[in-house]
Amino acid sequence: MFADTAEFHAWFQDRCRAQDYRAAKVPLDRLDGWHTDPDSGNIVHRTGKFFTIEGLDVSRSGREVEAWRQPIIVQAEQGVLGILVKEFGGVAHCLLQIKMEPGNINGFQLSPTVQATRSNFTGVHGGKAVPYLEYFTAPRPGRIVSDVLQSEQASWFLAKRNRNMIVQVEDDVPVLDDFCWLSFAQIAELLRVPDLINMDTRTVLSGAVVRRAGGTDPAADTFHGALTRSWDRDGASLHATVELLSWFTEAKGRCTLTRQLIPLSKVDGWSWRDGTICHDRDQHFAVVGVDVHASNREVTGWQQPMFEPRSRGVIAFLTRRIDGVLHLLVQARTETGAFDGVEMAPTVQCQPENYRFVPADRKPLFLDEVLGARPEQIRWDSIHSEEGGRFYHAQNRYLLVEVDDDFPLEVPENYTWTTLRQLTEFVRYGNHLNVEARSLLTFFRFYQEDDR
Amino acid sequence: MFADTAEFHAWFQDRCRAQDYRAAKVPLDRLDGWHTDPDSGNIVHRTGKFFTIEGLDVSRSGREVEAWRQPIIVQAEQGVLGILVKEFGGVAHCLLQIKMEPGNINGFQLSPTVQATRSNFTGVHGGKAVPYLEYFTAPRPGRIVSDVLQSEQASWFLAKRNRNMIVQVEDDVPVLDDFCWLSFAQIAELLRVPDLINMDTRTVLSGAVVRRAGGTDPAADTFHGALTRSWDRDGASLHATVELLSWFTEAKGRCTLTRQLIPLSKVDGWSWRDGTICHDRDQHFAVVGVDVHASNREVTGWQQPMFEPRSRGVIAFLTRRIDGVLHLLVQARTETGAFDGVEMAPTVQCQPENYRFVPADRKPLFLDEVLGARPEQIRWDSIHSEEGGRFYHAQNRYLLVEVDDDFPLEVPENYTWTTLRQLTEFVRYGNHLNVEARSLLTFFRFYQEDDR
Repeated sequence: MFADTAEFHAWFQDRCRAQDYRAAKVPLDRLDGWHTDPDSGNIVHRTGKFFTIEGLDVSRSGREVEAWRQPIIVQAEQGVLGILVKEFGGVAHCLLQIKMEPGNINGFQLSPTVQATRSNFTGVHGGKAVPYLEYFTAPRPGRIVSDVLQSEQASWFLAKRNRNMIVQVEDDVPVLDDFCWLSFAQIAELLRVPDLINMDTRTVLSGAVVRRAGGTDPAADTFHGALTRSWDRDGASLHATVELLSWFTEAKGRCTLTRQLIPLSKVDGWSWRDGTICHDRDQHFAVVGVDVHASNREVTGWQQPMFEPRSRGVIAFLTRRIDGVLHLLVQARTETGAFDGVEMAPTVQCQPENYRFVPADRKPLFLDEVLGARPEQIRWDSIHSEEGGRFYHAQNRYLLVEVDDDFPLEVPENYTWTTLRQLTEFVRYGNHLNVEARSLLTFFRFYQEDDR
Repeated sequence: MFADTAEFHAWFQDRCRAQDYRAAKVPLDRLDGWHTDPDSGNIVHRTGKFFTIEGLDVSRSGREVEAWRQPIIVQAEQGVLGILVKEFGGVAHCLLQIKMEPGNINGFQLSPTVQATRSNFTGVHGGKAVPYLEYFTAPRPGRIVSDVLQSEQASWFLAKRNRNMIVQVEDDVPVLDDFCWLSFAQIAELLRVPDLINMDTRTVLSGAVVRRAGGTDPAADTFHGALTRSWDRDGASLHATVELLSWFTEAKGRCTLTRQLIPLSKVDGWSWRDGTICHDRDQHFAVVGVDVHASNREVTGWQQPMFEPRSRGVIAFLTRRIDGVLHLLVQARTETGAFDGVEMAPTVQCQPENYRFVPADRKPLFLDEVLGARPEQIRWDSIHSEEGGRFYHAQNRYLLVEVDDDFPLEVPENYTWTTLRQLTEFVRYGNHLNVEARSLLTFFRFYQEDDR
C-alpha cells in the first residue's frame, strides 16, 4: 500500500529501472516466427495461433467514407482482463501490475491483475503460468462485481472481445513483485498521468461500482454537481432507458454495413514500403514489425507484427447540463470490426489528421466543437495509450467537453443524450459501449471535484 | 372490441371462412421460382432474395451430440414484428391480425399488428403495402414500450434476428379487416387455445409490461403467489443479477462451438427422397416444398421451401419456489444458429423422439423430470406453432412444471435459477433469451390465478 501517489511513482520508477526491456521496429517481412502467406498475402504465425493480419472489405458503412479496404487483425480467441479488489481499512483497493508491452510508448504501464489471452494461460507461448488467474476462472473465491464480454478497437480488430471482470475478495492475497494495491482515489489521480493506466485497466474499471465518499453534496450549479446527479438512479434523464434502447435498435436497423475478409494482397490503397504495409496517402496506420526483449514477461524475447497509427486520435464526449443533470452526447456508430456492427461510441472518435484536406461537410460531426472548445469548457483532457500488445505507440487524446446551454437538444439521428447512470447500465451488457466510450466513462467514474 | 373471447372466436371463424386459402406439399425440386444451385446444391430463389437453404457444419458444440451437419435457413435481412397498444376505457388492448401462413397447421393464426420482412416493405414481393408499418418506422407517433433485436429458432435459422417492437398510441387507429383489438386479459385466455397466438406474437409480448389488476395479493403459499413475487422488483432472488450475467459470460467462455456454412450437397447424413431432403434416420426435420394459394396475402399464390419437423418438440421450464419466490431453471444453451452462439434457454428444449433409442446418459438433462411430471406439478401445458412462414406444421408442447421442494438448488454448470423479474430485464437486451424461452416467459406474463 502506498501512503500517496508520490510513493507509488517512486516504486514504479524503481521497478521499471530494475527490468531489462527493449522494443524496436524491424522489417515486417523478416519477422522471426511470422511469414506472409504466398497465396493470400496474409501475415500469419508459423503455429497458426495468436492472430493473423488479413484484409477487410467494407462497404455501405454509412460513415464519412462509404467503402474501403484495409488490413485488420483477426484474433478469435477471447482473453481475460481481470481486476482483483479488496478492502483495506474499509477502503477498496485494486491489484494492478506493472506490465511491459512492446507497443507502449513508455515501455511500462499499469495493467489489470490478469491480462491474458487464452494462449497465455493454455501455454501456447511456452511461457510462465499467469499469476492470480485462479481468481478469474470458475470455481473461484470472491464476489463478482462485473463480468462481461466487451469489444475492443473495432477499426483495427475484427470481432475481438475480451472478458472484463472485477472480483472482490476478503481473504489475504499475496502480492507478487511488480504488483501493487491502489485505492480508487489513487487511481483517480493516476488517470491524470499520461500513458500510465493502460487500456485494459480502463475498460475493466468502466464496470466498477465507485462508492462516493459521504459528506456534503457538490453544489447544484457546478459541473461536478451535475455529474454527481447524472450517476443518480433517480436523476432525471432526457430520454427514458427504453427510448435509448429503441434508438440503438433503430440505428442497427439502419446499418447496411457489409464486411468481408479478403486476402491482404487484395487490399488496394495499401502497399508494402520499407518493410511495412502502409496506406498510400500515409493515413490511418501502418503494419510494422517489432522486435522485443523483456525480462519480466512469460517469454523473454520475440518478434511480432503490430499496427502503428500515423497520427494521434481524438476521443471525446460532448456533455451538457440538462435541468441540472449532466448528459453525454452518445453516437450510434457503425464499427466495422465490431461483433454486432453498431456500438455506442463517444461523440467524436477519429484521427483528425485524416480529415485535414477534406471538405467541411465530409468531416466527422462535432469535431470542430471538440477541437475548438474554449479552455473553460474542457473538463478532462488526457493522453492515453491503446493496447500495447497489438498497437505500436498508439495514443489518443481523451476529452470531456462541456457545451453551452444554447447547444441544441435536437441532434442528428445517430446521436442521443444519455446520463451516466444509463450508460453504466448498458456497460453491464456486452456489445453496447465501444472501448473508447468505456475509457471515457472510466474518467467520469473517477472524476474528482478538484479536477475542475 | 369483443365483449368476451366467445365473441372473438365467432368473428375469427367467420373471417377465416371468408378467405380462400390452401397450402399443400409439392416436390422440393419442382418449386416455381426456386432452384437447386448446380454447384452447391443450395436451394435459392431466382431473384437471389428472400432466403436460401444451405448446409451448416457444426463441431465442438458441447451438446449431447458434439458434431453434425444439417441444412439451415439463411436469411440475413431483419424483419419487424410490431404490436400496437392502445387503452380503451383505461384497459390496454393489442391490435392483432388474422394471418394465413403456409406452414400453419390450421391455416390462420393471430399475428402481430405488423409482421413483415424488409422484402415485404420494400416491395420485393411485388405485393401490397404493409398496413400500420408507419407506427413502427421512425419518425413515428406513440410511446415505445419495447424495441429490441431478438433471435429466432436457432436450430433452423442461421443468425436470424427480428426487431420486436411494442408501441403504445393514444390517437384513433382505424381497424382494417382481419385486425382486432384484444385486451391483455383476453390474450391471456387465448394463449390457452392451441395454435392460435402465433410465435411472432408470443415473442413480441415477452417484452410487454403487464400491469396487474389491483386488489388482494394472491396467497403467499400458492403457486400464483410465488409467481407474483417473482415479478416483484424486490423479490428475493437466489442469485444477484450480476452473478447471473457472470454465469452467462462464463458459459460463453466455455463455448467452443465452431460453425461454418457449407454447400448443402456436402451435408452428409441427409439425402434427397421423394422430393424432400430428409435425415437418414428420419429425425429432426425434412426440407419440403409447399404450394400456397391465399386471398388475403400480399401475393395470392406462390411456392416455397419449408422445414417440416419430424416430431413434436417439448419446451419446458422447471420452476421451484425458493423462500416463497418462484424461480426458473434456465439453461445457457449452445445455439448453433444463434448470433452469439450461446443464449438463455428453457430447462428442456428438444424433440424427445430423437432421443428414444439413445442411452440415458446421452439424453437431454431434466427431460425425464418434465415428461414424468405428476399432473399437479404441471402448471401450464399448451401446444403452439412455430413461425408458419418457414416451418411446416411445426408444433411444440410448452410446459411449466413445478418441482418439489427437495429438488436440488445445486445444478449443473450450464444451468441456474432466476426470477421472472431477472429474465424480464434480460429480454430488454437482445441476444440473451432465445425464442423458446421468450414464448414461455409470455405464458408466465399472462398467467391467470385460475390457470391452476
